[in-house]
Amino acid sequence: MRALVLGSTGYTGMMLVRLLLEHPHITNLIPVSTSSAGREVRSVDPGLAGSLGKMEATDGTYLPPDKIDPRETDIIFSALPHKASAGVIGPLLGKRPVIDLSADFRFRDALEYEKTYGPHPHPELLDGAVYGLTEWYRDQIRKADIIACPGCYPTCTLLPLLPLAGELEGTIVVNALTGISGAGRKERENLLFNERSENVAAYSPGTTHRHVPEILQELRSAGLDHDLVFTPHLVPMKQGMLVTTVVKSSRLDAGEIRDAIGSAYRNSPFVGISARGLPETRDVRNTNRCDIAVTDAGEQILLISVIDNLYKGAAGQAVQNMNVRLGFPEAAGLRTHGEF
Amino acid sequence: MRALVLGSTGYTGMMLVRLLLEHPHITNLIPVSTSSAGREVRSVDPGLAGSLGKMEATDGTYLPPDKIDPRETDIIFSALPHKASAGVIGPLLGKRPVIDLSADFRFRDALEYEKTYGPHPHPELLDGAVYGLTEWYRDQIRKADIIACPGCYPTCTLLPLLPLAGELEGTIVVNALTGISGAGRKERENLLFNERSENVAAYSPGTTHRHVPEILQELRSAGLDHDLVFTPHLVPMKQGMLVTTVVKSSRLDAGEIRDAIGSAYRNSPFVGISARGLPETRDVRNTNRCDIAVTDAGEQILLISVIDNLYKGAAGQAVQNMNVRLGFPEAAGLRTHGEF
Amino acid sequence: MRALVLGSTGYTGMMLVRLLLEHPHITNLIPVSTSSAGREVRSVDPGLAGSLGKMEATDGTYLPPDKIDPRETDIIFSALPHKASAGVIGPLLGKRPVIDLSADFRFRDALEYEKTYGPHPHPELLDGAVYGLTEWYRDQIRKADIIACPGCYPTCTLLPLLPLAGELEGTIVVNALTGISGAGRKERENLLFNERSENVAAYSPGTTHRHVPEILQELRSAGLDHDLVFTPHLVPMKQGMLVTTVVKSSRLDAGEIRDAIGSAYRNSPFVGISARGLPETRDVRNTNRCDIAVTDAGEQILLISVIDNLYKGAAGQAVQNMNVRLGFPEAAGLRTHGEF
Amino acid sequence: MRALVLGSTGYTGMMLVRLLLEHPHITNLIPVSTSSAGREVRSVDPGLAGSLGKMEATDGTYLPPDKIDPRETDIIFSALPHKASAGVIGPLLGKRPVIDLSADFRFRDALEYEKTYGPHPHPELLDGAVYGLTEWYRDQIRKADIIACPGCYPTCTLLPLLPLAGELEGTIVVNALTGISGAGRKERENLLFNERSENVAAYSPGTTHRHVPEILQELRSAGLDHDLVFTPHLVPMKQGMLVTTVVKSSRLDAGEIRDAIGSAYRNSPFVGISARGLPETRDVRNTNRCDIAVTDAGEQILLISVIDNLYKGAAGQAVQNMNVRLGFPEAAGLRTHGEF
Repeated sequence: MRALVLGSTGYTGMMLVRLLLEHPHITNLIPVSTSSAGREVRSVDPGLAGSLGKMEATDGTYLPPDKIDPRETDIIFSALPHKASAGVIGPLLGKRPVIDLSADFRFRDALEYEKTYGPHPHPELLDGAVYGLTEWYRDQIRKADIIACPGCYPTCTLLPLLPLAGELEGTIVVNALTGISGAGRKERENLLFNERSENVAAYSPGTTHRHVPEILQELRSAGLDHDLVFTPHLVPMKQGMLVTTVVKSSRLDAGEIRDAIGSAYRNSPFVGISARGLPETRDVRNTNRCDIAVTDAGEQILLISVIDNLYKGAAGQAVQNMNVRLGFPEAAGLRTHGEF
Repeated sequence: MRALVLGSTGYTGMMLVRLLLEHPHITNLIPVSTSSAGREVRSVDPGLAGSLGKMEATDGTYLPPDKIDPRETDIIFSALPHKASAGVIGPLLGKRPVIDLSADFRFRDALEYEKTYGPHPHPELLDGAVYGLTEWYRDQIRKADIIACPGCYPTCTLLPLLPLAGELEGTIVVNALTGISGAGRKERENLLFNERSENVAAYSPGTTHRHVPEILQELRSAGLDHDLVFTPHLVPMKQGMLVTTVVKSSRLDAGEIRDAIGSAYRNSPFVGISARGLPETRDVRNTNRCDIAVTDAGEQILLISVIDNLYKGAAGQAVQNMNVRLGFPEAAGLRTHGEF
Repeated sequence: MRALVLGSTGYTGMMLVRLLLEHPHITNLIPVSTSSAGREVRSVDPGLAGSLGKMEATDGTYLPPDKIDPRETDIIFSALPHKASAGVIGPLLGKRPVIDLSADFRFRDALEYEKTYGPHPHPELLDGAVYGLTEWYRDQIRKADIIACPGCYPTCTLLPLLPLAGELEGTIVVNALTGISGAGRKERENLLFNERSENVAAYSPGTTHRHVPEILQELRSAGLDHDLVFTPHLVPMKQGMLVTTVVKSSRLDAGEIRDAIGSAYRNSPFVGISARGLPETRDVRNTNRCDIAVTDAGEQILLISVIDNLYKGAAGQAVQNMNVRLGFPEAAGLRTHGEF
Repeated sequence: MRALVLGSTGYTGMMLVRLLLEHPHITNLIPVSTSSAGREVRSVDPGLAGSLGKMEATDGTYLPPDKIDPRETDIIFSALPHKASAGVIGPLLGKRPVIDLSADFRFRDALEYEKTYGPHPHPELLDGAVYGLTEWYRDQIRKADIIACPGCYPTCTLLPLLPLAGELEGTIVVNALTGISGAGRKERENLLFNERSENVAAYSPGTTHRHVPEILQELRSAGLDHDLVFTPHLVPMKQGMLVTTVVKSSRLDAGEIRDAIGSAYRNSPFVGISARGLPETRDVRNTNRCDIAVTDAGEQILLISVIDNLYKGAAGQAVQNMNVRLGFPEAAGLRTHGEF
């Protein structure tokens, strides 16, 4: 099978390129880039190894977006920024299935999108999109035209919560820590090494982060109708995300919640209860896993979940969705052994 | 004035030595160490500069603990571990004021101490101790025999909360991030560079961290009788602490809470509302400051506070207490300009 | 094929376990550990994923060393410390090929070993050993009883130099930078996060590092009879090594040296000239690659080479040697796409 | 005395502002900035503490450059980029002494400057400038109109070498490691946290770094007429620089070189032989020190020197020069106790 990647020079795009080059069922890869069109892929991304046989269609260079021919690929990934993504995807739709990593197709309701991102460029396309949290939308993904991969925060926050529909009460308080790559490859002062090293900070606190409406949409849709306080923090590492969620349940204790989560993901190759009491982000670095722990906290219960924000939180989940969509084994080409 | 430091080769002790060597009102310093007794201070701690004139009493070497003569100092600091600290301090009491950085004199109730640390070695001494959160105990500190400096987590958690007595309802949810130096200078596998770099983890979650009873004691004592969920996290940096606290108030909105906190510390040189929307730990690195922000979070309110865990969270606050106890200006010798 | 790993809980051992679990031609893996004997592998190393089918021989636990039966494996890896390794390997020899990652079999001359490591426990075994710098000893490795994998510094230093035999004159000056994992998983104060973060230092300078005699043995053996000044430095990262070598040649200019190196490794899947002017360690992180650059430096010439010290510098090269020894494709199971 | 800082929002400028705010003999400080003109200093640089009394002349805001009145200051610092600095300094000359941190006045010869930086905007001013390596130009600095502070690499490289004039032979090989702040506060992709964390790289190798001509000028001027190979490396830390220099001497052994260096700086408060065998950058972080070690390396000798690139390598040395120029004690307001 053949794959095409729009936006292949951002962090998510570079990760996608790696995963697809190593994927056992992808034989051809077309990397697309506006900023690096025509340049040799290896000179732009020297981490890639010499033998790039899978990219022979473009002679190992980035294709300019205006040269895309959907007939030369079997699946299209977009790692473009929001707004730009919908613009490029529009004309390609119906020709090949699209896996989008931007926010453009995550909302069922164009008005909800508009509140956060401004007017939607193609509201008419939203109906054809499926939310790509693989573990919860497998059946719809199998036949979707557009698969809208969730943001990294929604992935790490929703996975422990969704199995608990009907079991919780009160406000859900989420504190999230992310590695800096979550902010993308942008030349911004506050992303410089010297501004982030030996430093931590909260940002977009409370209910203001743009991932909050996305999380709420999915919680509501699953019947989890709770208030949410969500505070993200930047911590000095490249890849990794840890979410600490405080919930209240008068029906289940911590052990029962742990069981409920374990059961929900029994047949999922990537999500489950951590092998150690409390998971660390290194456990899942460079993997598609989400490890979860559940512990008592007086009258509350703590859920702690970790992912790699660029892998399960972005490119890895996109490939997982491709696997489901194209009928490959769900875990094909995705790593599960983390670091130490 | 002359000062003596017990346990001068741990991170807190080394920071104390620096602060006292630079202090304008300290003319003599006696560094004490068991593990390095008799060794030259500069060879053990080469960050110290060549001219160590203030240590002439020991010829620039560490004094062994059994050579301590209280008559040769005006104030005694102990940066020893808990239990060890009370043992050494006992015989020195009444002779010179003691500023203790361990947990040994932080509890009013020996039984409360025992639950966390085991039987108290000198319960009879607890009555003479004052809790050294300077901003709230200044008057008692001025004449105390023992000043028990708070832990770093209690310092950073209590400062934003104490002004809000009577204004809050419901559970207080605290998430805390600490630099690795908070764990001390211990040769433990999980403190190795390779185990902590590019990695974050929660630990002692919910209500199990040993600083929780200390925080609760002070909240209760101030009339803040709330449940507390407290989850600390290790993040890959040396020095710094950020605490994110979620509270609920039907009486005050975020602006009024901000005002209440600002007012409470109007005359305090180190604590106040951050000059930027959300404080970052670099703002206060290597300073005695605690910067605080208050923001809305739907029906809840977020308090975000930052300190340097080794400075305001340990050695700096100890020196602040010395300043109060010995009648120096409260800010003498303490830094307020952080990093960038 | 079946593999057994001695010393599976150090950094090198944990990396070996990962590579072998993912290796397409290894069907069974026996992890051995003294310190964790009998414990579940996933609880000791939670980065490993849940499905550990390849470890069914030990039920997913570490085998104690005294339970090793060579008949149950086809190849033996030892990631034990020097001295310990030779002791364990002795009785196993002749039964199965051994790939040793310690220093115990790297020297042809027991006296040379003794100068650095003390008396050799089994000098009679040295004759059966082949130095496992794969690119230069492939033919001998194919039939060796013991393959002695080089240290990380020798690997990164020798690869650019060995093709230049007969072309250089004068002293060779090497400066090396290593990530902290090069020092192993030892609970030592100077390996703590707080001692290494935001800090760099040289150590064992000049000619005193224990890898120097190993480098000299191989340079001499290849006809490179030069003096060597070798200064290693610890830099604050986990994995990675960069070696900057200054050489002088009156016969070849930088371009010709680049060509000579390129030619020497034309058929080697992992070693070659960097795709960017100057390679960075991230290019080869978590890969078996060694990327090399050559540039003018006035009358001298600079060689810059990068590897991942735990991968090509240890576990990866060990697996590469296994591939050669057991007749698998040389690159089987080894990664070539680095990070960004 | 009153001081004025041009370019106060770069890393060097922010460090200068801190040093001058804490300086015992500076009573007034005028921070100047184009990009932040009129904005409150604390909102742009929230690491600064609340009480900014020394900045009352501008009401705690940044002055726009066109409002500078030399009569309102006693000394002028410029932390502007090269070219920009000479342009602004020109009209101010003769009115107040200027301490420049750019490259604009470091060269005696405008043609030498031109090779590296392009045509000099004010070659006629070069004659009035003194090279601000304080330890070697004290007498000239005392009465200079322009003091051109050295770059960080020249500072750390020259200090160990200058005392050895007449004692060395052959090529000098320098390998330098710098923290990322050395590259300045520029929004460039290769300075992002994600590009530099867990990564090291050489850059501008051999003889191509723009600090090489500056180093050579001073070596030549001191009679050290040697070839130089200079290779800088970026390592993942904020502040710090370590230089490893390989020299050859048939006249002096390592001990004698150590003595020569020690003697040369006997009366210098900041430069000297390290208290430990090999200095680490943390020893001098946030200080104006340069710690030096000398060791044997076979037939060569190694000099290892460390500074903080933003302190002794930039803002600290600038203040040291101010102290000399204005007749304050040379060490006034400058820190000497490093980190641990």
